[in-house]
Amino acid sequence: MNKASKKAAHKFQSIFSSGHLRRHHRKPPGQVPGTAIHTGVQRLDEVLMTVHDFDESHYDIIPIQKIEKSEPFLQNKSKTWIQIRGLHDIEKLKTVWNYFELHPLVQEDIVSTSQRPKVEHYPNAVYIVLRMIKQHEGDNGNYNVQTEQISIVLGDNYVLSFQESDEPIFDPILKRLELTTTRLRKFGPDYLAYALADNIVDHYFYALDVINENIEKIEEEILDDPREEQLQKIHALRRDLIFFRKSVWSLRDGINSLIRDDLPLISTEVKVFLRDLYDHIVQVVDSMETNREMVFGLYDMYMSGLSNRMNEVMKVLTIIATIFIPLTFIAGIYGMNFNSEVSPYNLPELNWYFGYPFSLGLMVLLTGGMIYYFKRKSWF
Amino acid sequence: MNKASKKAAHKFQSIFSSGHLRRHHRKPPGQVPGTAIHTGVQRLDEVLMTVHDFDESHYDIIPIQKIEKSEPFLQNKSKTWIQIRGLHDIEKLKTVWNYFELHPLVQEDIVSTSQRPKVEHYPNAVYIVLRMIKQHEGDNGNYNVQTEQISIVLGDNYVLSFQESDEPIFDPILKRLELTTTRLRKFGPDYLAYALADNIVDHYFYALDVINENIEKIEEEILDDPREEQLQKIHALRRDLIFFRKSVWSLRDGINSLIRDDLPLISTEVKVFLRDLYDHIVQVVDSMETNREMVFGLYDMYMSGLSNRMNEVMKVLTIIATIFIPLTFIAGIYGMNFNSEVSPYNLPELNWYFGYPFSLGLMVLLTGGMIYYFKRKSWF
Amino acid sequence: MNKASKKAAHKFQSIFSSGHLRRHHRKPPGQVPGTAIHTGVQRLDEVLMTVHDFDESHYDIIPIQKIEKSEPFLQNKSKTWIQIRGLHDIEKLKTVWNYFELHPLVQEDIVSTSQRPKVEHYPNAVYIVLRMIKQHEGDNGNYNVQTEQISIVLGDNYVLSFQESDEPIFDPILKRLELTTTRLRKFGPDYLAYALADNIVDHYFYALDVINENIEKIEEEILDDPREEQLQKIHALRRDLIFFRKSVWSLRDGINSLIRDDLPLISTEVKVFLRDLYDHIVQVVDSMETNREMVFGLYDMYMSGLSNRMNEVMKVLTIIATIFIPLTFIAGIYGMNFNSEVSPYNLPELNWYFGYPFSLGLMVLLTGGMIYYFKRKSWF
Amino acid sequence: MNKASKKAAHKFQSIFSSGHLRRHHRKPPGQVPGTAIHTGVQRLDEVLMTVHDFDESHYDIIPIQKIEKSEPFLQNKSKTWIQIRGLHDIEKLKTVWNYFELHPLVQEDIVSTSQRPKVEHYPNAVYIVLRMIKQHEGDNGNYNVQTEQISIVLGDNYVLSFQESDEPIFDPILKRLELTTTRLRKFGPDYLAYALADNIVDHYFYALDVINENIEKIEEEILDDPREEQLQKIHALRRDLIFFRKSVWSLRDGINSLIRDDLPLISTEVKVFLRDLYDHIVQVVDSMETNREMVFGLYDMYMSGLSNRMNEVMKVLTIIATIFIPLTFIAGIYGMNFNSEVSPYNLPELNWYFGYPFSLGLMVLLTGGMIYYFKRKSWF
Amino acid sequence: MNKASKKAAHKFQSIFSSGHLRRHHRKPPGQVPGTAIHTGVQRLDEVLMTVHDFDESHYDIIPIQKIEKSEPFLQNKSKTWIQIRGLHDIEKLKTVWNYFELHPLVQEDIVSTSQRPKVEHYPNAVYIVLRMIKQHEGDNGNYNVQTEQISIVLGDNYVLSFQESDEPIFDPILKRLELTTTRLRKFGPDYLAYALADNIVDHYFYALDVINENIEKIEEEILDDPREEQLQKIHALRRDLIFFRKSVWSLRDGINSLIRDDLPLISTEVKVFLRDLYDHIVQVVDSMETNREMVFGLYDMYMSGLSNRMNEVMKVLTIIATIFIPLTFIAGIYGMNFNSEVSPYNLPELNWYFGYPFSLGLMVLLTGGMIYYFKRKSWF
Repeated sequence: MNKASKKAAHKFQSIFSSGHLRRHHRKPPGQVPGTAIHTGVQRLDEVLMTVHDFDESHYDIIPIQKIEKSEPFLQNKSKTWIQIRGLHDIEKLKTVWNYFELHPLVQEDIVSTSQRPKVEHYPNAVYIVLRMIKQHEGDNGNYNVQTEQISIVLGDNYVLSFQESDEPIFDPILKRLELTTTRLRKFGPDYLAYALADNIVDHYFYALDVINENIEKIEEEILDDPREEQLQKIHALRRDLIFFRKSVWSLRDGINSLIRDDLPLISTEVKVFLRDLYDHIVQVVDSMETNREMVFGLYDMYMSGLSNRMNEVMKVLTIIATIFIPLTFIAGIYGMNFNSEVSPYNLPELNWYFGYPFSLGLMVLLTGGMIYYFKRKSWF
Repeated sequence: MNKASKKAAHKFQSIFSSGHLRRHHRKPPGQVPGTAIHTGVQRLDEVLMTVHDFDESHYDIIPIQKIEKSEPFLQNKSKTWIQIRGLHDIEKLKTVWNYFELHPLVQEDIVSTSQRPKVEHYPNAVYIVLRMIKQHEGDNGNYNVQTEQISIVLGDNYVLSFQESDEPIFDPILKRLELTTTRLRKFGPDYLAYALADNIVDHYFYALDVINENIEKIEEEILDDPREEQLQKIHALRRDLIFFRKSVWSLRDGINSLIRDDLPLISTEVKVFLRDLYDHIVQVVDSMETNREMVFGLYDMYMSGLSNRMNEVMKVLTIIATIFIPLTFIAGIYGMNFNSEVSPYNLPELNWYFGYPFSLGLMVLLTGGMIYYFKRKSWF
Repeated sequence: MNKASKKAAHKFQSIFSSGHLRRHHRKPPGQVPGTAIHTGVQRLDEVLMTVHDFDESHYDIIPIQKIEKSEPFLQNKSKTWIQIRGLHDIEKLKTVWNYFELHPLVQEDIVSTSQRPKVEHYPNAVYIVLRMIKQHEGDNGNYNVQTEQISIVLGDNYVLSFQESDEPIFDPILKRLELTTTRLRKFGPDYLAYALADNIVDHYFYALDVINENIEKIEEEILDDPREEQLQKIHALRRDLIFFRKSVWSLRDGINSLIRDDLPLISTEVKVFLRDLYDHIVQVVDSMETNREMVFGLYDMYMSGLSNRMNEVMKVLTIIATIFIPLTFIAGIYGMNFNSEVSPYNLPELNWYFGYPFSLGLMVLLTGGMIYYFKRKSWF
Repeated sequence: MNKASKKAAHKFQSIFSSGHLRRHHRKPPGQVPGTAIHTGVQRLDEVLMTVHDFDESHYDIIPIQKIEKSEPFLQNKSKTWIQIRGLHDIEKLKTVWNYFELHPLVQEDIVSTSQRPKVEHYPNAVYIVLRMIKQHEGDNGNYNVQTEQISIVLGDNYVLSFQESDEPIFDPILKRLELTTTRLRKFGPDYLAYALADNIVDHYFYALDVINENIEKIEEEILDDPREEQLQKIHALRRDLIFFRKSVWSLRDGINSLIRDDLPLISTEVKVFLRDLYDHIVQVVDSMETNREMVFGLYDMYMSGLSNRMNEVMKVLTIIATIFIPLTFIAGIYGMNFNSEVSPYNLPELNWYFGYPFSLGLMVLLTGGMIYYFKRKSWF
Repeated sequence: MNKASKKAAHKFQSIFSSGHLRRHHRKPPGQVPGTAIHTGVQRLDEVLMTVHDFDESHYDIIPIQKIEKSEPFLQNKSKTWIQIRGLHDIEKLKTVWNYFELHPLVQEDIVSTSQRPKVEHYPNAVYIVLRMIKQHEGDNGNYNVQTEQISIVLGDNYVLSFQESDEPIFDPILKRLELTTTRLRKFGPDYLAYALADNIVDHYFYALDVINENIEKIEEEILDDPREEQLQKIHALRRDLIFFRKSVWSLRDGINSLIRDDLPLISTEVKVFLRDLYDHIVQVVDSMETNREMVFGLYDMYMSGLSNRMNEVMKVLTIIATIFIPLTFIAGIYGMNFNSEVSPYNLPELNWYFGYPFSLGLMVLLTGGMIYYFKRKSWF
């Protein structure tokens, strides 16, 4: 394996634990806790705010520039969802946060985009951090996964959602909102918050499929030809699975606390749906565990592939050497220079009429014996 | 190992985690939760509905076309079990679901056939998801296992069972129902639900036996001749056991909640039987753990088999090389062309009367020494 | 390793998990739960029933044919232990079960002899399943362990014990019952039940010793000469330990529930003794864990033994080849046929007076150098 | 690998578990519990005591010589933080301890500087032990981490902090104290204690980054050239991670108890911040777990690197030997001395006109065949 | 490795799990529970009993022959510690046990000296079993550890301590008792019991140091030269650590129950100290875990050491063979007997003027090429 391919192999993309997730981009130590500093990348020109106001009779979408513009929607009896995209403009976000009186620690978590998924209860709101996982088809045929932190704040008559980009993550929800008969329109904001979270967890099953396909692809590659490159892929998969599992695991605890605890913001009807969501998450965690075991199995397969190949190499060497070494010895014998003139015992074969054919016959016989022996050992 | 056999090996059938279970055939993300979409295969022409109406004095079997036809049986005092086979016709199923007012999430789970086994409590019903595991004798002598999701809904005076095919899974129950003296006829619908579940768990022991036999078969194959094919079988077994264990494990928690929680639908008498069922499940889980350890042991056996074989190959090479290399050296010595005429010190052996026999004797001696050495090392 | 010894190795006896324990000899699926079917072997001609009636003043042993004969002993104030041996005659056993009104599930468990050890509470009785483990000296010097399911039913004024054979398992108890001063005579039937269980757990320590000795024996064998046979022994040990541990573990939970729960059948005084029994069981579980780690260690030892031996083989090959290949090369040089007559540069050594001794000297020097090199590498 | 480099490798620095942490520098056994003996190193000439007195209106820093000098600050209504640096002068520390009536066991723990992080509740105070982890850039490019035990005592109107050196660990806190608007000035001493702890936990993320970078560095080294040195680095990393994890883990439990328990010294407002701190710690623990898995992966990578290299060595040997052994055999054939004069069958090739070219051709053909074979096996 | 050294290696001393601990020296099964049978060794001629009577004003040491002699000390208001050494004379011990009315099971445990450490509550006493671990410097430089079971019985106004030998384990306590100001003299017997236990746990840290040093010693040995002997040492260390950990773990639970449960015999003041003891034990357990991981690391190091060495051996073989095989081939070429007289194409080199130098040059060139190739592969 040459240097270049080694480098390339080393650059093998890890799905979820890519750069900005593994390295902890955090504010310098000693900073005031609750200081909001954006630790992600700016993906939009400006912070976009959209009000979705709806109840069973209407559904309006109103882009706003200032958060105060949402006042009338919050005052009326319909439910309000304010979708905020872009996290780089702390000043503008601060106007939102102050308007809804979010706790400084919530503010900090919304913009430091490498949070573990979690659910936190505050007196006036429930704060949910999720991680969106979305795969794109890369140009080299490899999978290419983008992760993004989504924050959801559930108040008594509103839902806030924060995301870094304007990826159309919530499009299915928008479509469902247009239908008058959906539960989304009938139920309270807690159901909307649930639907947003459910929408994200649904994508995890796709991420699992991507991982599954990768495991199978690597398995086939190893069966074809085990190379160091695959070990690194296994290594990366392992890391991804740990990362993924941890994320989902902590989400699981959060959702569980929403079901178990007696929160005024979550109605009993929605708890049934949260239980279903919880169930999905457990299913993801289970599949993850299975995948993890599979990845360990890949390593075993790789190592035994190496051993097998070594065995094959050794067998070829052994067969060649074992056949030719004795033949060469015979040739050596009849290459000796004993003086056959001083004695009839000195290499009389050299002067036989069929001396050479005799020696060749001897060699053929030996070779035949060897080949029979190897056949019986089933080395061929 | 040639390409073809590799492919074949790779196609080695996994028992439980075959295709439609590992891949998550789910509705596209963002779908309304509680949307019933059949994710399995259509196995019947139409949805079959059969009413089993029984008490201590009678037992009637009535095939029905419309769920409303079951009305009189539900009204009377006898217990009613409605067996529904076929999950592809959502419209028809919807009439059943609406009739019994099942929760949308239960509806969704009944037809998305890759659910984890679980027990869920709803105000008016207990919903139990199970996985039937049934083995057929395959034509190639290999085992061939079919799994199928069975849903049981236990109401206050009825039991619903949903399954995809019309496999005669519940035949033993039907036979027992014909006997007037069985507990099935005496006890309430909770006992029937228990009996249906117990019937399925009973099959797990057979699945375990199948796995046991496979482990032993692979063990014997590895002892005969460790090949890459077996590693893949071990790999598949490992995956199956994880899958199987997860299924049974989640069922265990479900049954436990039925025993522990104070549900009006489950009588104390039936709880004793559920405890017995719980015990069986724990026994299955335990055997699974044992099997898992055994499978790890198989891998160790395989790897040490490879090492052993390598050792054998190396020993043959070493013995041949070690014996012949010195002999060839001697032959080489007497093949040198030193001019014995210019000096008595130059290869005088060549002109000895018994020069050749002497050299052969030397070789025989050396060989004998070698063989003695190897014998003492117990390499033969 | 020839085929025959392989087969023999494969037949290596597992201690506890032998045939009828691993395979689940169960009634066909769908059977009525609580159907008593004997799944063991008939070991006695007929079912033997013996009444032990005792209190501080007397101790009588009365063999009976019909369970009704025990009536007077159960009526009087003394304690009564009915020892039943033989489980094949369901009809006769049924008379006993009905007489004491045992739950159908208890009846089923008594005769299906591959139960996990457990403790179950019923309104009128405590049901304890134990597994007796007893070792015999086999004829080939190997250990030979027999396991047998013992069922104990503790009622308010009686104890029933069920066993398959008439092995003298309870002889120590019988001897102690003959002494007027023992606690057995003073305390209630709960103490007797405890004593029976304690008697069985005492044997576990012996089983542990047997396993310990086996581990040490295999360890010594591996140090002498690591062979595939030992790997299989390790494999079997591993299986045994898992099996043994699971058994004891489930017993541990059962005994714990007896101590913790407030059962009217268990007096406070006896709970102190049960705590002691619990302690012994925990000690057995601990030793088992230690043994399991040791068995993992054996595998490591085996694999490194293989590696070591491979190293040794390779060293011999390398030493021989490394010494002789250069020597043979020198011999080859002086076996070349360059015409020394056409040029003084063509192999003048051949015509030197001390040509041959010179070449031999060269060889000796080279050999010496090699040996010095290997010595420094400490390969000898 | 020569001796010197081995020694060097063995001296490879472990980050956290360096000398005075691994070895338990404890007082001799049998000492009175609660005897304060400094088990660290003297890092300062004398014990420095600084009073930080502050509230929303003022912030004063007063170095004091005697603890009694802090009396007026403790009496007034503002909050007081007494920072003590240097742990070697037990006599002087005793004046502090007695003044604040600290429990003897707290006294002992403050100066025995290899405590596990923990939180302890005493009637009049909360005692927190933390471990500061700070990295310096070493001269050899390697990281160089210094750990130091920090003790924090939280009373009703004061905070004491104890540290061995005068490292500017708390400088960020000092800077924030200077700002009148910070929560530090507004909230009670419990918030200060939280801020001190948070400041230390913040550094853990940096330590994690250091470990992360090391893992990647070692990964690259192994890919380049797997050497025994790296195994030792992996070994050291493993040790470090265990040590680090244990530390953080025990801290986690401590902080949790502060949140959960109803302590009068901790206000509800601060508990929200402690929950955030708890969250950070859990994040550190999670990353640690991921890193630990990664380190296991490194070992796998190392071992497979060794195997790969062995394969490569063996391939070279096999190719060379397999090509030249048959060639040498052919040369041997035509080096035989059969007398071609006595028979036309004795090595007639020797007298052919194109005998030599024929033999060379034979050799070229053989070599070509070999090379083709190896190419097909993709050994090049 | 010869047989003798193998045996020696096998005899490698395990620290804690030596003979009388691993083998369960128990009474034969079926014995009456609570039968006191000494399972250790007699280490003293007779059972020694010493009364330590003390309060804040006095401290007397009175050796007694009969337990009744302690009556006056138990009657007075001062605290009394009766130290009993020697466990072989059951009759004499029985007088003590009956005098203090110890439960039969406590009696049994005191003299069966392979108990797991534990804490048991009886109505009139707390019974604590500990295991003293003390290291001696062995004559061969190896560590040599002696373990001994210590039983402590804490009554309302007395403490009993039982030990097998008269090792001066409690000397530090005796010294502290002589000082009037110690807490030992002020506090109740519960503090004395704590001090005795603390004294023993203090020794565990030393045992840990011994294990630490051993791990490092073995690590260095493996780096120098990995041999089978070390694997056995690792094996023994592993066993020791499991044994040690189990012991300490069960002690941990016992101490925890003393803190948690509301026992009249333990005062609140002493509970603070028990919490400290608990903390020490947890620290020991933690270190043990770390050590266990380290020992696993040693095994990895050993295995990779073997692989490395194999690599080295193979490289030497490959270098020698790869260099000399082509050279020998060239020599073989020019050793062929083609008749150069019949044709100018038959080995014309043999008659060249610089034929021999030419062939030697060819060889030198080839060797140079090979060496360059190996250098580039960095095999030297």
